[in-house]
Amino acid sequence: MDKRHAIGIDLGGTNLRCAVISRDGEIIRKVSEPTSDSIEAEIFRLIDRVLADDVAGVGLGVAGLIDRRQGRVLVSPNLPGIEHIDFVSGIRQRFNLPVFVENDANAAALGELISGAGKGLSNFVLFTLGTGIGGGIICNGDILGVSAEIGHMSIDAEGEKCPCGNYGCLESYASARAILSKTIYLLEGGRESILERYCQGNFYKLTAEDIFRAALDGDMLSREILKTAGRYLGIGIANMINIMSPEAVILTGGLTGAWDIYVTEAIREASKRAFKDLFDRTSIIPSTLMGDAGIIGSAGLVFRSQETPAGT
Amino acid sequence: MDKRHAIGIDLGGTNLRCAVISRDGEIIRKVSEPTSDSIEAEIFRLIDRVLADDVAGVGLGVAGLIDRRQGRVLVSPNLPGIEHIDFVSGIRQRFNLPVFVENDANAAALGELISGAGKGLSNFVLFTLGTGIGGGIICNGDILGVSAEIGHMSIDAEGEKCPCGNYGCLESYASARAILSKTIYLLEGGRESILERYCQGNFYKLTAEDIFRAALDGDMLSREILKTAGRYLGIGIANMINIMSPEAVILTGGLTGAWDIYVTEAIREASKRAFKDLFDRTSIIPSTLMGDAGIIGSAGLVFRSQETPAGT
Repeated sequence: MDKRHAIGIDLGGTNLRCAVISRDGEIIRKVSEPTSDSIEAEIFRLIDRVLADDVAGVGLGVAGLIDRRQGRVLVSPNLPGIEHIDFVSGIRQRFNLPVFVENDANAAALGELISGAGKGLSNFVLFTLGTGIGGGIICNGDILGVSAEIGHMSIDAEGEKCPCGNYGCLESYASARAILSKTIYLLEGGRESILERYCQGNFYKLTAEDIFRAALDGDMLSREILKTAGRYLGIGIANMINIMSPEAVILTGGLTGAWDIYVTEAIREASKRAFKDLFDRTSIIPSTLMGDAGIIGSAGLVFRSQETPAGT
Repeated sequence: MDKRHAIGIDLGGTNLRCAVISRDGEIIRKVSEPTSDSIEAEIFRLIDRVLADDVAGVGLGVAGLIDRRQGRVLVSPNLPGIEHIDFVSGIRQRFNLPVFVENDANAAALGELISGAGKGLSNFVLFTLGTGIGGGIICNGDILGVSAEIGHMSIDAEGEKCPCGNYGCLESYASARAILSKTIYLLEGGRESILERYCQGNFYKLTAEDIFRAALDGDMLSREILKTAGRYLGIGIANMINIMSPEAVILTGGLTGAWDIYVTEAIREASKRAFKDLFDRTSIIPSTLMGDAGIIGSAGLVFRSQETPAGT
């Protein structure tokens, strides 16, 4: 029978998402579960729930550094439990299917290429803007296959230490975690804001959405924090434009909800900093698939392997 | 007759260099001239001097941003006279040969891949460390074909303005120009150094080599300046390791002469900042071709075009 579908699994967030996907990126069946401590058993269970005879293979998008050759996760700061688990052998043995592993942001970039904002493009950089900041790079119409850890590019030589070991990482200035942490710091320091009402004085209940909502309500503190974070994002975008001369920078993740302040400021800053000839050729656009890009791109790893000559 | 040679032209420095090169990177004949104001006529003259029947085409490595499709230089801060000159048509019409254009640092990276420090590697980043800082990226055994302007990656969000428009560019901290400018600034401020003797008090006669020589003689000011510049270079290297997960970072250009202080400090800093799993897989090594990498790689553009299927 024609193996026209593939299973894509996204291990990038707090939920483990799994779906059967068609070659053109259509989601046929989708299931998800909160990520547990026994991830391998959970993956097996989810695959069992969606598996059918027309599935050609399994692709996994995993948060962290990947050893593509061996199909292993080297480092996953957010999911340390999956480091060095041999997914490929485990799934391959149990389901007798080919298995492919990629970094979750690279997989999401492939998803955008297949059926999202990157469709028809050959070269783009995806920024995943959430709790942390990840990156995926498409070059010459394919995943570049590099680490693309753009959230851990230092944009401030003397900046604060990041848990990754570097100092002044983009992620420490422009992620949701950075925005929340700065907000709480300023509120605790006595800055006035309608955010105090939003959280009844318990600053640790605040979310990035609260800050964006407050900013839209005219809250000066929230506007200032989002603009500053956006300005740093713009520096990261300018750096990637100067290095990768992409056709597009595609932005995805929860923080793109704050487009009108945070992203608008980022685009303004990038326009001042990147080489003008490169900036003018780069569209800075939102993802169209958002949370589904990861499963679509992970499944795409399977189809992609069928198109690539062996050994490349 | 077998067209087994190609002409490589390096328009990256103060000299225009031109050579006939074999497929395996051997230099058959080489000529050079100081770069003049009438560059196109100069290129024609140099090609005339080395041209033979066995030449398959001409490759040019040009300092600046390249429009590869149109074969034009978009921006060349150091050689503004060549912006928007249509090299490809000019040379093609006059010599009836195929012509290829690349950024000079990308061409040098291809040279290192063909017969230099990158031979046998598939993925590396070349840093050209001279008056400015350029970059070339090899991925999957070929030039990646992106701008790779790593000298204009901001590593200091609030840093000084660079002529390129960005702020806090790597080049403003770690290039020979930056090292000289900081040295002169500190000497004019009254800092003591044996450099005063080297230049008989005329600080503007100093070169980066003088500073390295003074550092080796134990001059504290020179050591401090080279170490600081090296530390910033290390930040740039760590960023590129985190983004590109290369097998190697290859360093070339005049400043690599100061390896024992400047580069050693860079490697130390990068080791502290890059993801450990990526850093441990990256060799940081000197170019073996140095000034010849550009002409060898430019000629390599011709051979490369013969191996690549049309349209890719």
